[in-house]
Amino acid sequence: MTEKKRTTIILFSGDYDKAMAAYIIANGAAAYDHEVPIFHTFWGLNALRKDEHISVKKGFMEKMFGKMMPRGANKMGLSKMNFAGFGPKMIKDVMKKHNAMTLPQLIEMAQEQDVKLVACTMTMDLLGLQQEELLDNIEYAGVAAYLADAEEGNVNLFI
Amino acid sequence: MTEKKRTTIILFSGDYDKAMAAYIIANGAAAYDHEVPIFHTFWGLNALRKDEHISVKKGFMEKMFGKMMPRGANKMGLSKMNFAGFGPKMIKDVMKKHNAMTLPQLIEMAQEQDVKLVACTMTMDLLGLQQEELLDNIEYAGVAAYLADAEEGNVNLFI
Amino acid sequence: MTEKKRTTIILFSGDYDKAMAAYIIANGAAAYDHEVPIFHTFWGLNALRKDEHISVKKGFMEKMFGKMMPRGANKMGLSKMNFAGFGPKMIKDVMKKHNAMTLPQLIEMAQEQDVKLVACTMTMDLLGLQQEELLDNIEYAGVAAYLADAEEGNVNLFI
Repeated sequence: MTEKKRTTIILFSGDYDKAMAAYIIANGAAAYDHEVPIFHTFWGLNALRKDEHISVKKGFMEKMFGKMMPRGANKMGLSKMNFAGFGPKMIKDVMKKHNAMTLPQLIEMAQEQDVKLVACTMTMDLLGLQQEELLDNIEYAGVAAYLADAEEGNVNLFI
Repeated sequence: MTEKKRTTIILFSGDYDKAMAAYIIANGAAAYDHEVPIFHTFWGLNALRKDEHISVKKGFMEKMFGKMMPRGANKMGLSKMNFAGFGPKMIKDVMKKHNAMTLPQLIEMAQEQDVKLVACTMTMDLLGLQQEELLDNIEYAGVAAYLADAEEGNVNLFI
Repeated sequence: MTEKKRTTIILFSGDYDKAMAAYIIANGAAAYDHEVPIFHTFWGLNALRKDEHISVKKGFMEKMFGKMMPRGANKMGLSKMNFAGFGPKMIKDVMKKHNAMTLPQLIEMAQEQDVKLVACTMTMDLLGLQQEELLDNIEYAGVAAYLADAEEGNVNLFI
């Protein structure tokens, strides 16, 4: 019996372009039959937010963070040339022209390919994000679960 | 005899949040009995600076860099939502509320757990940082030492 | 017969300092006889651009991207303390003073050491970059080629 290969990704970044890179690698690895967990931590958690407003009880600071952070993958900015939101529009226009998949489509494809989407519970606490606000069918875990996956990983990336 | 697992981290970033992620992973890995060297290079060296002013002889450019860069982990900014220093205050407030460890505490814990803190001598030269300005009980090395550690590492991350 | 060790790098970043770190690690690994492919994707592609203007047919958006992005390694900005281009000048001044290699020199050295420079074709399409605009003697590939290299890699970094 041959063991499955594994690619693990920590998605720390909340940038549209970096999240795209993460999900393109993840979908590629899944297509080559790797096990692929993506651990979303800090700003990377925003890629997992539902795009509608979810009413949950929060403290003042948590509400502030909730308002200031992008609600879902489609609203994330670029790491470079963001130009107050103009950059993401440009990128999305060229992506459309080249029939490239958008970030929300890449995330959907990852879920269909059984990429394991994990939200880091420690940083959810810090940023005041609750499970109701995040996509369905994701997992919740901490650094121990990440290390258990990564120490047997063939490819481990921090993005 | 079973060999020890190893997690290596290059901390390139000088952002408070990214350094937190690095040290949380490092402390987690050390708790699972991994060998954990963290190579601090470029802006990541600032996490190792003492927070008081240390009087050392420097050229003009080196003095400029020294003044412009944050003096120690506690003074580092955020990679996102820094808002001229308001963001770090918000994050530190929520961390306090959730009894999360601060970055200086995470670094102290790493030292207690025998995480090997390494300063990259080549970038120390470039940025004009001298050993007297950095924390005690750290090591000094270059890319060759990093590669020797990383090529046998289970998990290797660039943060 | 012993197998060659391998260090793979994804260079996503278009920052001078991050690209320097990538190429210092790559040259170090090549000196220790590793196979070293560097996959340039998104803004990292700019490190491979020729510095002169190359006349190629492009659509409007592609022309815009071409104009807004730095043309070649020497024109890239810093990830920190860029100060509208003043930061790179400072760094380059101290590098000169310390006889450190510039980024274009590091890239040249990498080519001499047979580091495999790869341009990601998918993001070349997105950003409208054409082969004529990039350095000679590089390779063109996608995520599948990256994964094939990385899954046997000793050290895999995303920079």
